[in-house]
Amino acid sequence: MKHTITFQPDQVSIRVDKGTNLLDAALGAGVHINASCGGQGVCGKCRVIIEAGEVDSEKTENISQEEYEQGWRQACKTSVLSDCTVQIPVESRGLKRVVAQKLDMGKSDRKISALQTIPLAEGWDLNPVTMKVPVQLTPPTLKDNASDLTRLATALKRQHHIENMSVDIRCLRTLPQILRTGEWSVTATLAAAQGLGAVSSSQDKDRPSKLVRLEPGDTSGQNLGLVLDIGTTTVCAELLDLKTGKVMAEAAEYNKQAQCGEDVITRIVYAQKPEGEKNLQSLVVSSVNQVIDEILEQTGSSKRSIAYIASAGNTTMTHLLLGLETRYIREAPYVPAASFMPLVWASEVGIDVPDCVELFSFPSVASYVGGDIVAGILGSGVFQKKALTLYMDIGTNGEIVLGNRDWLACAACSMGPAFEGGGIKHGMRADQGAIEGFHINPVSLEPMIITVGRKKARGICGSGLISVLAELLSACVIDRNGKFVRDLSSDRVRPGRFGMEYVLAWAEDSGTGHDIVITEVDIENLIRAKGALFAGCLTLLESLSLSFSDLDRVIIAGAFGRYINIEKGKRIGLFPDIPVEKFHFLGNGSLLGSRLLCLSRGMLGDIEGIAKMMTHIELSDNSSFMDKYMGALFLPHTEAGFFPDVIKHLDANCQLIHNERKTS
Amino acid sequence: MKHTITFQPDQVSIRVDKGTNLLDAALGAGVHINASCGGQGVCGKCRVIIEAGEVDSEKTENISQEEYEQGWRQACKTSVLSDCTVQIPVESRGLKRVVAQKLDMGKSDRKISALQTIPLAEGWDLNPVTMKVPVQLTPPTLKDNASDLTRLATALKRQHHIENMSVDIRCLRTLPQILRTGEWSVTATLAAAQGLGAVSSSQDKDRPSKLVRLEPGDTSGQNLGLVLDIGTTTVCAELLDLKTGKVMAEAAEYNKQAQCGEDVITRIVYAQKPEGEKNLQSLVVSSVNQVIDEILEQTGSSKRSIAYIASAGNTTMTHLLLGLETRYIREAPYVPAASFMPLVWASEVGIDVPDCVELFSFPSVASYVGGDIVAGILGSGVFQKKALTLYMDIGTNGEIVLGNRDWLACAACSMGPAFEGGGIKHGMRADQGAIEGFHINPVSLEPMIITVGRKKARGICGSGLISVLAELLSACVIDRNGKFVRDLSSDRVRPGRFGMEYVLAWAEDSGTGHDIVITEVDIENLIRAKGALFAGCLTLLESLSLSFSDLDRVIIAGAFGRYINIEKGKRIGLFPDIPVEKFHFLGNGSLLGSRLLCLSRGMLGDIEGIAKMMTHIELSDNSSFMDKYMGALFLPHTEAGFFPDVIKHLDANCQLIHNERKTS
Repeated sequence: MKHTITFQPDQVSIRVDKGTNLLDAALGAGVHINASCGGQGVCGKCRVIIEAGEVDSEKTENISQEEYEQGWRQACKTSVLSDCTVQIPVESRGLKRVVAQKLDMGKSDRKISALQTIPLAEGWDLNPVTMKVPVQLTPPTLKDNASDLTRLATALKRQHHIENMSVDIRCLRTLPQILRTGEWSVTATLAAAQGLGAVSSSQDKDRPSKLVRLEPGDTSGQNLGLVLDIGTTTVCAELLDLKTGKVMAEAAEYNKQAQCGEDVITRIVYAQKPEGEKNLQSLVVSSVNQVIDEILEQTGSSKRSIAYIASAGNTTMTHLLLGLETRYIREAPYVPAASFMPLVWASEVGIDVPDCVELFSFPSVASYVGGDIVAGILGSGVFQKKALTLYMDIGTNGEIVLGNRDWLACAACSMGPAFEGGGIKHGMRADQGAIEGFHINPVSLEPMIITVGRKKARGICGSGLISVLAELLSACVIDRNGKFVRDLSSDRVRPGRFGMEYVLAWAEDSGTGHDIVITEVDIENLIRAKGALFAGCLTLLESLSLSFSDLDRVIIAGAFGRYINIEKGKRIGLFPDIPVEKFHFLGNGSLLGSRLLCLSRGMLGDIEGIAKMMTHIELSDNSSFMDKYMGALFLPHTEAGFFPDVIKHLDANCQLIHNERKTS
Repeated sequence: MKHTITFQPDQVSIRVDKGTNLLDAALGAGVHINASCGGQGVCGKCRVIIEAGEVDSEKTENISQEEYEQGWRQACKTSVLSDCTVQIPVESRGLKRVVAQKLDMGKSDRKISALQTIPLAEGWDLNPVTMKVPVQLTPPTLKDNASDLTRLATALKRQHHIENMSVDIRCLRTLPQILRTGEWSVTATLAAAQGLGAVSSSQDKDRPSKLVRLEPGDTSGQNLGLVLDIGTTTVCAELLDLKTGKVMAEAAEYNKQAQCGEDVITRIVYAQKPEGEKNLQSLVVSSVNQVIDEILEQTGSSKRSIAYIASAGNTTMTHLLLGLETRYIREAPYVPAASFMPLVWASEVGIDVPDCVELFSFPSVASYVGGDIVAGILGSGVFQKKALTLYMDIGTNGEIVLGNRDWLACAACSMGPAFEGGGIKHGMRADQGAIEGFHINPVSLEPMIITVGRKKARGICGSGLISVLAELLSACVIDRNGKFVRDLSSDRVRPGRFGMEYVLAWAEDSGTGHDIVITEVDIENLIRAKGALFAGCLTLLESLSLSFSDLDRVIIAGAFGRYINIEKGKRIGLFPDIPVEKFHFLGNGSLLGSRLLCLSRGMLGDIEGIAKMMTHIELSDNSSFMDKYMGALFLPHTEAGFFPDVIKHLDANCQLIHNERKTS
């Protein structure tokens, strides 16, 4: 159910879902409300008056009883229940005059939820990669004393049409006891009969027929799958109920390998040291075990219920997880040990799950286009549709795929981890307290910040960094070189150890007890990152004689948190200046693809098809890429022609703001 | 080339191969020559005179120069080079009169060599279970930077037509380094792509396609297979050159599990103790590792050249080797954990070979009819021929198979380890110093003993026990109850700790420094063992409405050493009284079948067929078996009708001997 919220005195309206938080609604509408504590309700700066309509709101300490009766509320603690008219008093706006409409800082913004717009692959059915079936055996007699295993195989064939059952030796070791404990009524977990080939993952599209676990009684209701995204910076996991297809829990942790180097190159260098590879393997496994523990704690599920793990990551991460040599990934001509990985037992690489849990690794395309991209292309269905699609995965590296159901080309550009918060002074993952929404009053320079979980700010996540950079630019706090404008009359802009910086949250409003800032060095890193991605997209398009205007769709994947703001991404030159309707936000594409495989083993063939179909275009020895990269080190770009709408907006805003600043 | 040897004064002739040892020839001809030291040449009792013909003979200390010139030689140190006439002087015969012909103790004896009469399976070709192929790769370039594994798979496909190559993760870990060490010229070892099913071993009849080892350069000339026979008492191994099919070396060791119990039942009981199963597993693996070390030492081969291990054993041994629960093998209704075993890595169960060496276990039929029998039926080709065959495997247990290419039935009878030397005071394996040939002078009771390796006697092996028992019976030293005849005038027959005993070798002639004897208790054990086997055969035949006379062939398998004497086996009631021409001696049938599989992977389908085709007949609850067993506890049998020829011979001999003893 949708309601219209009208913000006064700007007279700006937005249609939102019933129950939407008022601060979120204002940010969505481009209406500035001062907000320092991230939405926790403690700073008391976001006071508004509900003039009409029904809201659900806590009375907080920052509102007196008298004010409460007059309609005063804290926006961050208020959700809308009907059409509303909301008055924002001057002290909450920090602007005396009505400027929002003219500044064009809101309304047309399109914020995409990862959960609402997933352009899923089609044609899959719920047919999980591991099966768990109850089975009843006839007890043996002297006249019928076939072996336990033969007896079980016969029953599985009769009761579940499972042909040619095979068995893992470790499972076989438990068989006689479990059959008798269960009084000949047991539950069999069946997995893929064999590993993947060297050049193929499709050898096992048939029904699972390898017995990997046996439990007494009927436990077939508990069949869980785990999906892992092994990122250079972050390890994410989801726990899936393979019976229903539901995601039961999710968790993320920093990849502990970060202590050995921030990006894949430094990790590969580290791996050459004595014990280096072994250490890196242990560190990533330790991170994986940590997310598994968190997920199980959330759901109260037992490790024993996990029957399958699907993992995707970039090529280096996948190699390090499996203990493979990475050296030649880094040295020209950039050759990985393998693209298609064999199935292994998760416990063999150190993952703390029971024996006989298969670990599937998504195949990679090249040294810098990994299984996470193959998984994303699988999950997003790019390979199934006619629409010409640009798929961008923004992680520690930027990977881009261009194509449709007929062809796929890909490239990797070294963005660095900036948009994951790496190399950013207060960068962080989209965890509790991460600034994800940001607006700035262009005159007072007071911020409006919304954090993940509505906690006091602890740092800035990917989508927050896009917002901060775009808003600082729109509000003429930084110039198009990414440098802070001089002579701004606010103590929030100040010199710091890493050049000038802007204080997003003062120590007393922050969750860390320290000022949360963004520095000029942070901004340089962000510009280099977005410049590399843009140059990569452009090079890939041009190498196929295409341009941005030919694109039917742009799919953005990455760990940005729940939302991404396309307009703001365009404003800083991260995304191309094409209609927002063409954009889709996938969230973590790697997890999405892994999830799809777990639920629908028929996708194995598609995975192989994608990995084999994708043509890799090497940017590292492409001189045109370097030229394009240099041109993109500007906000949004040195060539105005690439971003006509953005430039127009920025020019108009700038004029207005300078006037405002003079008059205020 | 054959020569005729005529022994005087008995005028007994035998045709033997050129180079045959004179003592062997005499034993074969049933001619007694005193011989105490087993053929080592030190006792000096086997002096003979070469009257005509050419021989090759060392002059020993026991022959003076003058004697040597007159034609005196030691029989044990002489081999024949032409037709010969050999005079045996009275002091070497111990008999004054000529009795050999009348006693009918020789001539018709048929001694079968394991190496000469193997009735091999047909229709196999040299197509080993693992392949080793040299492969040349094109080094990668920026334009062709596919992964190392993809590059290798492509080259294997082009150069060796290997499709769908898969890889083990441990092998993959070594891949990048080995490709570069070998400068893109390497040797790939390819094994079966997947393990066996629960109910089938034929899933992998195609070409090997799983990469399990990679070596720099061309090492394809060294492709070795190891075959193991895991017996309750003895662990035997052979090293095979898979390129040529040749057996390079063999070794045997006692199964160290013996310290936990002599037969499978006591081992299963032991396995129920805390750590019991684990201890048994470690002990058998330690025995396996010992035979492997011996074999490698013999050939100077490297462990790294072993690419495959095929193992066969009885059901309990196979379970214990793989670490499977044995408890329900012993408890009615006698159910093993599995009949078809999954392929495992040999190193996983503790066998000290490199990673990624597959360990194949022959499938079993029932709790007491194991993979060793399936291997024997495979190797002997029983399943391929029209001839109705009785297959007997005489080990710690007796297993019998009856049938032909159309049907197979099997049963197991608990013989105990007597014919393997277990429970026999001086029983031993057919190792150096084991008495394998035996003859006794029925009057002087002086023995003629021939040992394995012509060493001083250290004990008696299986074929020796058959000889000793048969000769003692023929020479009226023991009666048909197996008891020593009283009032024999020889210090070789004496009371001992285990009843009466016969001294085969005095301490000074023995290799142990102690008297080597056979006791009445030993003889009781042997009678019980042969009784169980005979009763089993009879029960199996009768359950199919057949009798011994219906048999076209009898195949005898077992670790008897190089030879087995069929007549003597018949004389004690171990083998049925049917024409000797129908008998074949296979030696170790288990090793033979394993060897065949290693050399010809096409046999996998046959193995499955045999295991599935064989109907198991349970003797443990068969009252008719028990009756037959009681009847067989006699030499040769209580019912004379089963052994008409033997009885006739014994009766005739007995009369003659008693007369001889009176006159001498």
